Amino acid sequence: MSFLKSRDEKFLKISSSLHHDSNIKKYDLLVNAVHTLNLAKSGYISSEEAKEILTALSKISKIDFEGYEDVEEAVESEVVKITDAGKKMHTALSRNDEVATCLRMFARDKLLELAEKVCKLRSSILKKAEENINFLMPGFTHFQPAQPTRISHHLLAYVSMLERDFRRIIDAFKRSNLCPLGSAAFASSPYNLDRSFAAELLGFDDLIEHSEDAVSSRDFLIESVYVAAQLLLDLSRIAEEIVLFSNPNFNYIKLPEEFSSTSSIMPQKKNPDLAELLRARASKLVGNLTAAMCTYKALPFSYNRDFQEMNPILYDSLIGAVDFVEVFSSMFEKLEFNREKLKEDSSKFSTTATGLADYLVINFGIPFRIAYKIVGKHLKGEKIEDAAREFGYDVKIDENLDAEFIVESRKNIGGTCKKEVERMMSNALEKLSRDVMEVERYKKDVENRILKLRKILNEMGVETWF
Amino acid sequence: MSFLKSRDEKFLKISSSLHHDSNIKKYDLLVNAVHTLNLAKSGYISSEEAKEILTALSKISKIDFEGYEDVEEAVESEVVKITDAGKKMHTALSRNDEVATCLRMFARDKLLELAEKVCKLRSSILKKAEENINFLMPGFTHFQPAQPTRISHHLLAYVSMLERDFRRIIDAFKRSNLCPLGSAAFASSPYNLDRSFAAELLGFDDLIEHSEDAVSSRDFLIESVYVAAQLLLDLSRIAEEIVLFSNPNFNYIKLPEEFSSTSSIMPQKKNPDLAELLRARASKLVGNLTAAMCTYKALPFSYNRDFQEMNPILYDSLIGAVDFVEVFSSMFEKLEFNREKLKEDSSKFSTTATGLADYLVINFGIPFRIAYKIVGKHLKGEKIEDAAREFGYDVKIDENLDAEFIVESRKNIGGTCKKEVERMMSNALEKLSRDVMEVERYKKDVENRILKLRKILNEMGVETWF
Amino acid sequence: MSFLKSRDEKFLKISSSLHHDSNIKKYDLLVNAVHTLNLAKSGYISSEEAKEILTALSKISKIDFEGYEDVEEAVESEVVKITDAGKKMHTALSRNDEVATCLRMFARDKLLELAEKVCKLRSSILKKAEENINFLMPGFTHFQPAQPTRISHHLLAYVSMLERDFRRIIDAFKRSNLCPLGSAAFASSPYNLDRSFAAELLGFDDLIEHSEDAVSSRDFLIESVYVAAQLLLDLSRIAEEIVLFSNPNFNYIKLPEEFSSTSSIMPQKKNPDLAELLRARASKLVGNLTAAMCTYKALPFSYNRDFQEMNPILYDSLIGAVDFVEVFSSMFEKLEFNREKLKEDSSKFSTTATGLADYLVINFGIPFRIAYKIVGKHLKGEKIEDAAREFGYDVKIDENLDAEFIVESRKNIGGTCKKEVERMMSNALEKLSRDVMEVERYKKDVENRILKLRKILNEMGVETWF
Amino acid sequence: MSFLKSRDEKFLKISSSLHHDSNIKKYDLLVNAVHTLNLAKSGYISSEEAKEILTALSKISKIDFEGYEDVEEAVESEVVKITDAGKKMHTALSRNDEVATCLRMFARDKLLELAEKVCKLRSSILKKAEENINFLMPGFTHFQPAQPTRISHHLLAYVSMLERDFRRIIDAFKRSNLCPLGSAAFASSPYNLDRSFAAELLGFDDLIEHSEDAVSSRDFLIESVYVAAQLLLDLSRIAEEIVLFSNPNFNYIKLPEEFSSTSSIMPQKKNPDLAELLRARASKLVGNLTAAMCTYKALPFSYNRDFQEMNPILYDSLIGAVDFVEVFSSMFEKLEFNREKLKEDSSKFSTTATGLADYLVINFGIPFRIAYKIVGKHLKGEKIEDAAREFGYDVKIDENLDAEFIVESRKNIGGTCKKEVERMMSNALEKLSRDVMEVERYKKDVENRILKLRKILNEMGVETWF
Repeated sequence: MSFLKSRDEKFLKISSSLHHDSNIKKYDLLVNAVHTLNLAKSGYISSEEAKEILTALSKISKIDFEGYEDVEEAVESEVVKITDAGKKMHTALSRNDEVATCLRMFARDKLLELAEKVCKLRSSILKKAEENINFLMPGFTHFQPAQPTRISHHLLAYVSMLERDFRRIIDAFKRSNLCPLGSAAFASSPYNLDRSFAAELLGFDDLIEHSEDAVSSRDFLIESVYVAAQLLLDLSRIAEEIVLFSNPNFNYIKLPEEFSSTSSIMPQKKNPDLAELLRARASKLVGNLTAAMCTYKALPFSYNRDFQEMNPILYDSLIGAVDFVEVFSSMFEKLEFNREKLKEDSSKFSTTATGLADYLVINFGIPFRIAYKIVGKHLKGEKIEDAAREFGYDVKIDENLDAEFIVESRKNIGGTCKKEVERMMSNALEKLSRDVMEVERYKKDVENRILKLRKILNEMGVETWF
Repeated sequence: MSFLKSRDEKFLKISSSLHHDSNIKKYDLLVNAVHTLNLAKSGYISSEEAKEILTALSKISKIDFEGYEDVEEAVESEVVKITDAGKKMHTALSRNDEVATCLRMFARDKLLELAEKVCKLRSSILKKAEENINFLMPGFTHFQPAQPTRISHHLLAYVSMLERDFRRIIDAFKRSNLCPLGSAAFASSPYNLDRSFAAELLGFDDLIEHSEDAVSSRDFLIESVYVAAQLLLDLSRIAEEIVLFSNPNFNYIKLPEEFSSTSSIMPQKKNPDLAELLRARASKLVGNLTAAMCTYKALPFSYNRDFQEMNPILYDSLIGAVDFVEVFSSMFEKLEFNREKLKEDSSKFSTTATGLADYLVINFGIPFRIAYKIVGKHLKGEKIEDAAREFGYDVKIDENLDAEFIVESRKNIGGTCKKEVERMMSNALEKLSRDVMEVERYKKDVENRILKLRKILNEMGVETWF
Repeated sequence: MSFLKSRDEKFLKISSSLHHDSNIKKYDLLVNAVHTLNLAKSGYISSEEAKEILTALSKISKIDFEGYEDVEEAVESEVVKITDAGKKMHTALSRNDEVATCLRMFARDKLLELAEKVCKLRSSILKKAEENINFLMPGFTHFQPAQPTRISHHLLAYVSMLERDFRRIIDAFKRSNLCPLGSAAFASSPYNLDRSFAAELLGFDDLIEHSEDAVSSRDFLIESVYVAAQLLLDLSRIAEEIVLFSNPNFNYIKLPEEFSSTSSIMPQKKNPDLAELLRARASKLVGNLTAAMCTYKALPFSYNRDFQEMNPILYDSLIGAVDFVEVFSSMFEKLEFNREKLKEDSSKFSTTATGLADYLVINFGIPFRIAYKIVGKHLKGEKIEDAAREFGYDVKIDENLDAEFIVESRKNIGGTCKKEVERMMSNALEKLSRDVMEVERYKKDVENRILKLRKILNEMGVETWF
Repeated sequence: MSFLKSRDEKFLKISSSLHHDSNIKKYDLLVNAVHTLNLAKSGYISSEEAKEILTALSKISKIDFEGYEDVEEAVESEVVKITDAGKKMHTALSRNDEVATCLRMFARDKLLELAEKVCKLRSSILKKAEENINFLMPGFTHFQPAQPTRISHHLLAYVSMLERDFRRIIDAFKRSNLCPLGSAAFASSPYNLDRSFAAELLGFDDLIEHSEDAVSSRDFLIESVYVAAQLLLDLSRIAEEIVLFSNPNFNYIKLPEEFSSTSSIMPQKKNPDLAELLRARASKLVGNLTAAMCTYKALPFSYNRDFQEMNPILYDSLIGAVDFVEVFSSMFEKLEFNREKLKEDSSKFSTTATGLADYLVINFGIPFRIAYKIVGKHLKGEKIEDAAREFGYDVKIDENLDAEFIVESRKNIGGTCKKEVERMMSNALEKLSRDVMEVERYKKDVENRILKLRKILNEMGVETWF
């Protein structure tokens, strides 16, 4: 917003977005460049003027902006300093469509980056699952030891969850990568502009057509924050298990030293800081989502200044998510599972009780609810044969109903037997490689379109800065 | 959870979910029926036992449950009261996969219903847009009159927003409509069960395969709450405009009496209560989302009792959203636009200033930033010719730059001219009819699968209750 | 709101508050009774009319309301059915001040009840602390064993936290217990009413004077939800420790059976359901607070219908908090600490390392940062004397630096030595008894004022229903 | 946390708090200084060592820290670079009590500053109320014109609300200004330290005694965020009225130019940006509160690294609140009310209807519910006498029941008549001056204690940096 002369200094300070606009500076320069080409294409400026403006944009890409209210004002003002043609640059361009375009470019690029990192993390976890395919561990419900399972089976549950997060991120990407440019303040403009040309050169898949919708919608922003929050929340569950299982009373996992910290006062400590910070980051994203939603609530159309405060929420959420997923993935690769302790605990604390009840049902035809009671008595000290007899059943157990037996006996789809785990693992790897290629394809699409822009500028003799 | 004998009464009271399980009772009966068929199919129970259980389920579908901890316990106990075969019913079935299946059926059905209501609302708004296609209104930024636009153009912005909400709901539906049944507590079971058979009869599109993921994931629930919250937030913006524009200082719209209220003390009042309540409901859903996310954060695998408290959040969010969208849609149909007042205000308060600046640029080649300044001076009282001359330009304005002229002059994609609005409207109608058919198809898919279940039961001589 | 004739049925359904107004029905009857007395006092109705109205109120206190929009409409309509004088009852009374008064009475009573329950819980914890004063346990940072401490010292940290929650509840109570009655819609009324007389009879401490502030402020409601949320969040930390420490790998505590549950499929389980549900309830209250704040944001003065949706948030938050604190307190009383295991672990996993470093500092003048390094080497296997010598220090450790020694050595204010724990415990008991008396006094104040009302009605020959 | 050698660079980057520790650097230096004095006082270091450390702290107060994990590590490391005595500085000091002390000092100072700004704002509003005491305006319910009131009466509602915000801030201040120093990691330490001496010199009112509570409680932080959020939410309602009433369809207020902005494309605009940004900031604080609560939920005792992420939430919330309240206050001082338009609208749109009904009740003894109906008919066009006759009443209205008459007729406590407004204004001014003095006193208390520290350092020949 260009302020009236007498503006209050403190007001200017709290209303300026320049400090967080650094996240979209590169996009804003591209938007101005493409809009300039579009103005020239339709004859509103001469090709000389276009070249002067583009050269000026190239120059100011290297300087830091200071003292402006926002990046849009800064770019226009700095270009005007260099060339008078700059006064024509914002023909048919409002800050409203300008900033909406930048935000969507930011979201698009970061969401793709996030999708990539999620693939990397899935790969890290799948490697651990493969390494540990033969090894058992206890599974929990209510954080109480419940039944034996496989390390690999447990890790595949992580992966399944992340596959959905990946898909949600891609959905948000597709709804974000649409170009608002050309919508002006909200009501379009009387200039004849080729909106599709601009969209293409900025790497967008398509237009967001309706001019008022284009500048006043922020659901793409909120959805982007949501998918990042959902991802981090899902990871917070893995993080929680890392915190718990690295406690020496469990001693199930060994934290890689390069991702742990020690204490300033307790020399024996090795703390799971990354996992703790990730839990906190998930909470931060919940707060970010709340803030974005609460800001957005009940704002009339079209643009409201309140929107400005949603931008840093987008930046913080996506940048933080990308960073955390990346580091978490590196950490996971180096995580070590204490197979002996996990094996030992897999049959400790009566985790095989359900397996025993199931055995009674399958082999002796005892109704489950009665088998359940028989095993309950057995757990309190009775011999299983005696307990069964009380309910009128004669049983004789020959097999060794240990954890291995039980884990292998669950052969249904999704079950814990080795063969089924291998099948699921193989599927997960296939899905991963398809997803990796899909993200790659989207990235290439964006890059190729922007390459066209670079080529145009180079042909005009303008030094490209991107 | 079946409690130990000596359970505390007050604890039982606060931990029982029976009061909100009423939302899933019908699903739980279906799950038990299908599971029973599956047990019979694999020979774990005889077909006589199956029939006894199914008949018992049919009977208890008509009674109210009381004094139980949850619907799962109630169903099993009531069946056992009727037939001893009931003691076999929960073979290979845990409350963990049972409740996860019910929740996903609930989410699936309500999301489809919500998608339908969103279509209905889009239709209501499109009708209003058609009726008012020729009429002007002022558009706002910062809630200040900004530029003239069309009522129809403005309403199409609502519709574009709702098209994305529709798509998000469908995405959530697809991620929800997957069957967890057969996963038991979290580690599958040693019984040989045809999970796909069960999934089909319960109307699901497919399995959620991994047994631990199947019972411990709740991202589908959170995503369902998110899409409902996003929808209501989007509607809260429309609601805000209804509150504002029904204020007599605007007098832009006339509220239908059957959706308004009056005051107990001020006889002249007609209050926009529905719009106010909708704003509040949007806020409620933000709180619901926060609660669900905060509950879910950092819960280790697999099932935790905390999950139980996420269920009423799902029920409340989706039921409330469906109801509000439906009523909002009925209200919208009867909303009247005060075309005279809107027309009058469309050019009031200098809303045509930008159009004038654009005119100077297009017709006299004045750089936009200078045209902006010329118009600024004109707004303070100078004649436009004089103001232009100060900047060295000779201008002569022959045309009547009124609101109509300006609105018609914006012919770009997404713009306000009549032809472009007609094009967008036609597209919106087409998209709507495609979307209506899509939801219809999903509903039919679900229904047809459940019809198969009904047929099976009928062939067995079991009276169906669904 | 009394609706216009042609109201839409579905709209009526979603806008009616009658179902949750049951929480304030008793208050609304009192408000109408007191307002009636006030009207009679000022001569706006005769004492006969007053008696008729009061008798009618007495009668309808026994019936259930159905088909009304809210309790205010129901009460007036039912009274009018009984006596024509009822048509005068809402002279100088608006639903706006009526509902604000009811809400404040509800908040006041529930906050006092909550304060009482917090005292009960403090008492339960203090008893456990006293019982276990001599017994050691490990303390944690980052959920890693850190240093030895006392069970009693740890429990006193719980109590200190709850003392602040108590105080916040009392602060909220004081800001809530102010009477808005007499403010009418928001602008007061031309009737000469004795507002203080009404406030007194309804048990309030004082008036909330300003008529517009009185009906349009809801900060008391939000603050009430906040203090309940803060309390539950604080308790969620204790709950988390109960979940963790009842895991058999810790086996630090034994859950009372009457507050646990077992599994429907795993007969060996004893699950910490209450603690899990409490964590979820804390999250629910965070969501409630978010919803209340988001609803309230940016609502212009004075009353808006959005406020209606804040009421059930208040009811749910305070009722839930009271119930949970009560049950949690009963559970805590029966919690058993496994003193042997806690003692054993108090010096396990090198928790005495800091004590050793401190010993080197105090007895041999080694700078802490060097002592820290020496102990670090010692933990990796070196003899402490050798490690010290590498840094140029000769040390000789005669004493047995066991957990007991270390815990007793910390004698500063707030420290773990027995004497200091006893001092803190004694203070905590004293503070508790002062706080118990304070709540008692507030309750008596309210009751005595309402007793006056009862006396007045009884003298008039009206049967009291409260 | 001091990291193990092989730490991962990216992990270090995302886990470092150095960038936001700038907010507490000054406090951390004071904490180290006071702790050093305490160590000397008890003989753990010599006075020469103390002086060396203090001189080093003085020196590093001027440098920027880089490459450290947090300010605590930075301060210790930089002091050790200057003097070997630095290795003793963190004797009996853990990062846990160090950071808790810094946070409480930050909260204390900012809360007092915030309380001051709230007083300034109350003063700005009261001035406007005084200036406009004689002028009328319409009051609203449901944002519909409801009844006439006074500008001054309306503004006093703002003030009443802010008085409670002030009190909540002071309550939070009192619960924050307690010293945790001396608690070490959580279990106190074996060093004999005078905790009260340290608390005094750091400006605290008292100790937070219990060592584990002292380092692991963060309710003071959450409460600080809550009171700031509540304040901003209350202000968001005023901001909303500024946005609405500066719309030219109302034209009730004139925004000061120095606090408004214009558009980059629409030269006629003057936008209420400050009010919009304030609404957004309120939403941001709701998100901050959610994030803090969600982070805190279910964290076991004592310190968890998750806490670190709560610190920037505190900084952002309080700094933002202070800035916004200050600018809002400056803006309010220059706000102009359009008295003519407000007067005109005060009786427009039938706002006098309730006054008329009340008049019928008071002067002709008509039951209110009937008077309400009579006026209802009158509003639809009947003569009031005719409408009354239909219900069997003869009325004759001599007086001019205009807005002025009605506003003056409400003489009850809290009412709108001039005398009552004057009384409330006078009370508000008195309360304001008491509150201003109270904050002043708290600030003086803190300053005087810190002056003692400065005096001690000066006497030791250490240059003070604070």
